[in-house]
Amino acid sequence: MESWYAEIITIGNEVLSGRVVNTNASHIARRLTSLGYTIRRVTVVMDDIEEIVSAFREAISRKPKLIISTGGLGPTYDDKTSEGLAKALNRELELNPVAYNMILEKYSKLNIEITEERKKMAMMPKGAIAVENNAGIAPGILVEHEGIIILATPGVPKEMEDVLENFIRKYLKVKPNVKYVEESFILEGVMESTIAPYVKQVVKKYDLYVKTHPKGHELAKPILEIQVAGSSTNEEEIKERVQKAIEELKQIGKQLGGTILQSQ
Amino acid sequence: MESWYAEIITIGNEVLSGRVVNTNASHIARRLTSLGYTIRRVTVVMDDIEEIVSAFREAISRKPKLIISTGGLGPTYDDKTSEGLAKALNRELELNPVAYNMILEKYSKLNIEITEERKKMAMMPKGAIAVENNAGIAPGILVEHEGIIILATPGVPKEMEDVLENFIRKYLKVKPNVKYVEESFILEGVMESTIAPYVKQVVKKYDLYVKTHPKGHELAKPILEIQVAGSSTNEEEIKERVQKAIEELKQIGKQLGGTILQSQ
Repeated sequence: MESWYAEIITIGNEVLSGRVVNTNASHIARRLTSLGYTIRRVTVVMDDIEEIVSAFREAISRKPKLIISTGGLGPTYDDKTSEGLAKALNRELELNPVAYNMILEKYSKLNIEITEERKKMAMMPKGAIAVENNAGIAPGILVEHEGIIILATPGVPKEMEDVLENFIRKYLKVKPNVKYVEESFILEGVMESTIAPYVKQVVKKYDLYVKTHPKGHELAKPILEIQVAGSSTNEEEIKERVQKAIEELKQIGKQLGGTILQSQ
Repeated sequence: MESWYAEIITIGNEVLSGRVVNTNASHIARRLTSLGYTIRRVTVVMDDIEEIVSAFREAISRKPKLIISTGGLGPTYDDKTSEGLAKALNRELELNPVAYNMILEKYSKLNIEITEERKKMAMMPKGAIAVENNAGIAPGILVEHEGIIILATPGVPKEMEDVLENFIRKYLKVKPNVKYVEESFILEGVMESTIAPYVKQVVKKYDLYVKTHPKGHELAKPILEIQVAGSSTNEEEIKERVQKAIEELKQIGKQLGGTILQSQ
């Protein structure tokens, strides 16, 4: 099966300092996973041109199908994503007329003049498509480079979500032809280290992703969430395979003295 | 001023798929920021040996003072951090006797036998120090490599926090000799794009980090959180500098027609 790898780049000192939790990356990851992509890497870098350039270049060198960045598209001095992306692609940064119109329209409706800072949000790498942002001002930036689709979205969560959905609806023509299925249940009373060898066997037998998430203390009060996930071009087949693996793991859990607490 | 860069590596498919939000990275980032470190990059990679090796090698090549990883230290087949770290450092993976004793002691107290899966948590790169984990089983792994301190912590949040604190208390002898100060306030009624050129001037004047975080809609209801942060070896000096920048930004905000809503 062809690999549909995607990468996520978060740009922002506030994420690096821990001041802001990177929920944007989780949102993008969930959305892309639901489309059948596998997120190979998430990279968080500073609001610094050289850092942004290297994050994009390194991601490009790993040849994913899709790279989505979030952050650094606003009007302030430290919003440097567009400039960094242009440099990473060796393209000129130019005033994108479509983006400029989008921005002009929004400000002129309120009789607000265009300043250099506001115009900056229309500066995009040559050849970019401006993606509509209905939740704010700065449009998303869409470019194709060496067969890789690259989308830069703003860092404000509702703007990122809006630009991401507009991109998926209007511009993402080629999507993974796979169905992603995920199921999990809670097992109480079995240590992670006890079930570990059985999990290994189930993974091998069904060729699925199985992960045990410890929720309690390994010794005193073992509680595990057991998650099974997989993708296939055949929706019925993958649903059945995940279901069989879940049933087998529940049986193993019971045989090891555990209780099935919850099916999710 | 010397740069005290640190990097964070999160290992886990559940973070890449967006199933789990990377709060571990934020916790580590906040803790290290409070000690005066600057987090230069956060990297999230899959539970895959080659991905883990490349994440550690790439971080090492950027020569930070400190690298902290989280995840992949448990007993299951997909816990591969120790093996990946050993490979990244070109060191052998060996049974660490101190780690093995820590693990043995925990299981033997409850009359639980040691299996291969449990023993696996004591396998560490040659020369590593086992860092106590009082919240779980798997000890942290501490190694020094080319002058860089590398600590691998478990992925369960309370275990990660426990290992991190034990490391800071017992093993982190050389810390940045700087004081980090951060202040912020809320400004209502001024657009981010309006204050942007003034922020740029304040940054230049005070040599501080200033970030405007939009909380409302740019046009309809502009609300900004304005954050000022900086580090210095002189605590009094940096406190005063941050305070002066905050006051100046509040004045600017008022002159632009805004209201100071909240001082944090």
